[in-house]
Amino acid sequence: MATRLSEDFMTSTHSAKYHELSLLLREAELLSSCGSVLSWDEQTYMPKGGAEHRAAQCSLIAGLAHERRTDPRIGELLGELQSSAGDLADNEEFVANIREVRRSYDRYTKLPKRLVEEISRVTTLSQQAWVDARAKSRFDLFRPWLEQVLALKREEAAAVSNGQGDPYDALLDDYEPATTAAELEQIFQPLASQLSELVAAISVSEQVISAEILERAFARSAQKTVVEQAAKKIGFDFHRGRIDESAHPFCSSFGPGDCRLTTRYQEEAFNSAFFGVLHEAGHGMYEQGLPADKFGLPSGQAASLGVHESQSRLWENLVGRSMAFWKGFFPTAQVNFPEVLADVTCEQFYAAINQVQPSFIRVEADEVTYNLHIMIRFELERELLSGNLPVMDLPEAWNDRYDTYLHIRPASDREGCLQDIHWSAGLLGYFPTYALGNLYAAELMAAASAHFGSLDQLIEQQDFAALLDWLRTHIHQYGRRYAPRKLIEQAIGHPVSSQPLLDHLWTKFGTLYQIPRPV
Amino acid sequence: MATRLSEDFMTSTHSAKYHELSLLLREAELLSSCGSVLSWDEQTYMPKGGAEHRAAQCSLIAGLAHERRTDPRIGELLGELQSSAGDLADNEEFVANIREVRRSYDRYTKLPKRLVEEISRVTTLSQQAWVDARAKSRFDLFRPWLEQVLALKREEAAAVSNGQGDPYDALLDDYEPATTAAELEQIFQPLASQLSELVAAISVSEQVISAEILERAFARSAQKTVVEQAAKKIGFDFHRGRIDESAHPFCSSFGPGDCRLTTRYQEEAFNSAFFGVLHEAGHGMYEQGLPADKFGLPSGQAASLGVHESQSRLWENLVGRSMAFWKGFFPTAQVNFPEVLADVTCEQFYAAINQVQPSFIRVEADEVTYNLHIMIRFELERELLSGNLPVMDLPEAWNDRYDTYLHIRPASDREGCLQDIHWSAGLLGYFPTYALGNLYAAELMAAASAHFGSLDQLIEQQDFAALLDWLRTHIHQYGRRYAPRKLIEQAIGHPVSSQPLLDHLWTKFGTLYQIPRPV
Repeated sequence: MATRLSEDFMTSTHSAKYHELSLLLREAELLSSCGSVLSWDEQTYMPKGGAEHRAAQCSLIAGLAHERRTDPRIGELLGELQSSAGDLADNEEFVANIREVRRSYDRYTKLPKRLVEEISRVTTLSQQAWVDARAKSRFDLFRPWLEQVLALKREEAAAVSNGQGDPYDALLDDYEPATTAAELEQIFQPLASQLSELVAAISVSEQVISAEILERAFARSAQKTVVEQAAKKIGFDFHRGRIDESAHPFCSSFGPGDCRLTTRYQEEAFNSAFFGVLHEAGHGMYEQGLPADKFGLPSGQAASLGVHESQSRLWENLVGRSMAFWKGFFPTAQVNFPEVLADVTCEQFYAAINQVQPSFIRVEADEVTYNLHIMIRFELERELLSGNLPVMDLPEAWNDRYDTYLHIRPASDREGCLQDIHWSAGLLGYFPTYALGNLYAAELMAAASAHFGSLDQLIEQQDFAALLDWLRTHIHQYGRRYAPRKLIEQAIGHPVSSQPLLDHLWTKFGTLYQIPRPV
Repeated sequence: MATRLSEDFMTSTHSAKYHELSLLLREAELLSSCGSVLSWDEQTYMPKGGAEHRAAQCSLIAGLAHERRTDPRIGELLGELQSSAGDLADNEEFVANIREVRRSYDRYTKLPKRLVEEISRVTTLSQQAWVDARAKSRFDLFRPWLEQVLALKREEAAAVSNGQGDPYDALLDDYEPATTAAELEQIFQPLASQLSELVAAISVSEQVISAEILERAFARSAQKTVVEQAAKKIGFDFHRGRIDESAHPFCSSFGPGDCRLTTRYQEEAFNSAFFGVLHEAGHGMYEQGLPADKFGLPSGQAASLGVHESQSRLWENLVGRSMAFWKGFFPTAQVNFPEVLADVTCEQFYAAINQVQPSFIRVEADEVTYNLHIMIRFELERELLSGNLPVMDLPEAWNDRYDTYLHIRPASDREGCLQDIHWSAGLLGYFPTYALGNLYAAELMAAASAHFGSLDQLIEQQDFAALLDWLRTHIHQYGRRYAPRKLIEQAIGHPVSSQPLLDHLWTKFGTLYQIPRPV
């Protein structure tokens, strides 16, 4: 259980200071959460004509929230509490909160205002340039912007790390605290080579799997019904959340008790909304599992992007794309799509949603090839940042890497290095958290399965409460109390490795594609 | 045309001050508009579990907006600009903005913080007590709260008027500037007696009109289609607005380019959503017609609640419930409700939506009796505020007044003095703006009809652009530049009276109920 501050404990000078600090942080977060509502509405319901005014609203709120987050009083209180924490020194939650607030406060305040504004200005323009460049599949239009973004991110890295260490680590730390590129490399490299082996084995397998049935006419309204049922079944709480439509799916938590998911219903693409919602619901259930009374404090916040992604991937892939899940859920799907699924068996359906196919676009990739897309980006963005890879050489390097890892070569920059928004938005060091999420998810699922004997039976019976409860107990309730890797390792009881993920993939896809795992 | 500040004019010291003042006001309004988005979402999409956090968000934003509206710098700038306006002194828009900002700034700052907080606290509790009292139809449960509310509102009136004049005027001024209770009385009294005469004549008419067809099964989805078509036709701009569902209909403008209407679709009540949306769309079109570049300044705001209501009533009643409108629109209704309206003629439908029937509930009242409901409230709230009517005697006084004006007597407090939320929320002086709106609407419609020769033909052809344009030119574009009555009188070219409203009602309902107007 999370350590709670007892009342008598709140009487000391230290706790008065801690209380003041908490109030400042909560109010900053409360203000920021108003911005989340504005942004959610912008992407779901806002009429086009509201765009200009909405931008002004969002910018005002963001500015006010930033002012509060960099309030010098926070620095003073941190300093005083860190030099003398009194009775609080033994309180694990207090110590963690001070550590995390210090980390983000330093980050916010170390960045010169000029740099923050310049990054904001350039990434806004750079995203517009990226949209245009992608539409025209012309990297040369985006190149000067990427060069500017990289220069600014190098400046950012130098500012937050005082010029110490690998600049990439300084950026990564914003998304995945207490993790270094060198550590990731150690985990990712064996993963990449073994994944390549699996992909190669699948590509020569005589077992052919078609995903054609997923492109039949799945009526939007029925998709909506099915998707909401599935989200509800796995444990997304609709009393404290809802699902709406937007051009790009996302999960936004406004605060305790209100978490919004979005999706997009496409008639001839069953996968898109269904697994998209399971994914977002995984994020949402994490948010719904954070301790509500700690809103605004690190102990009430998600541990990292990697841990967040572990929750979404676990529900999307390890639960949602499993045979056990479809044994239980396929009848519901058939009831809602009586014509489309009349001639389809559960086994055929399961095979279709698990077709493996090296492809160019990351967001459409299957469970096996997905992480290879990430490996490529992780390698390239490190080289770009260090300057070892000149921006002008990126398209060629990108295509070569796809050749190496996936044995396919993009024919255009649109399906090559222009496909993701991340770099144009200044998100460098963000991609690896997706692969970390997959890796953590497999570790967690293995640990939970070991704990329950097996989860298959529960999942087949559509009973997800035990698994969710296990995640609440081992992950959600702690917020940011532990560094992400430590949190996972406490939950699973041993060091993190890529083994459970590889085991899962070989077992599942070895069976599907009838290929033996090399010894 | 609204006077625009030319660029060279912006170089003087006075205009620098005016510019600073404008920025302060715009930012306060921008912040406040974020609160409007939060509140809209609360009433349309927010899951129940989000209520507590939303209350905290709204209260934070309201507090910040209030801080900015009472910023002493506004007082300083006002003082400096009022004592020496320089070149600006001849600028009509400048003068009006300073006058209006002074008015609201004084009101905000004259109220002691303690009183503001006490009113907020008591009216929150009092509304809860009212909900309970109404459900149980027990006035005694609400009485002590109403007494407290009245005491606080007397304090408010004394504070803002420095104890001068009729306290009711000080409250009325918050909703309808530059209007006094004595003036309203002069307009309302002849209106009330003539309306009573019309109601009496209708009640003995041999012409029986039934509204039964409106209670048939009008499918919700078809209602939605029809209602949106009607709103679009009369000129509500969906590029800058939208319609959603909520328990209680409202119109909320977030700022230029984004105005949200809500309604509630009830299957067996065609009137509710249809005329509700025309009403809210009238409000919305006013908001959409305000000059966008003056957002945050009085010249970019609606003139008063009465003028706002004139726009909603004009489109709801004078356009929407007219024979000309249904001659043009009935085919659309029939297409969308083919079964329900198969055996109904346009004339029968027109009669049904215009049935006159004295009833207890204001919000369900027809065009003729509606204003009598207002007269009763206006009289009673003045007597309550002055203390001439002790709160304990309110139910009896209420029922007696219904006897006098409408010849019906409520059998319970729920359908008597407990029906409206207003007094429990501290809204004293608000009711008369509804009747003023009806009166202004009739004046405006008469003036527009005179201007165009007749509007019937345009309305029948579903061509509403000319009328909307006339309103934009004569009302919307001016924002708050003129006091509400002056604004209307400029538009119509003569003093306001209840004559056009009475003429309209006698003509329309005299024909429908086949009764001659007494000479």
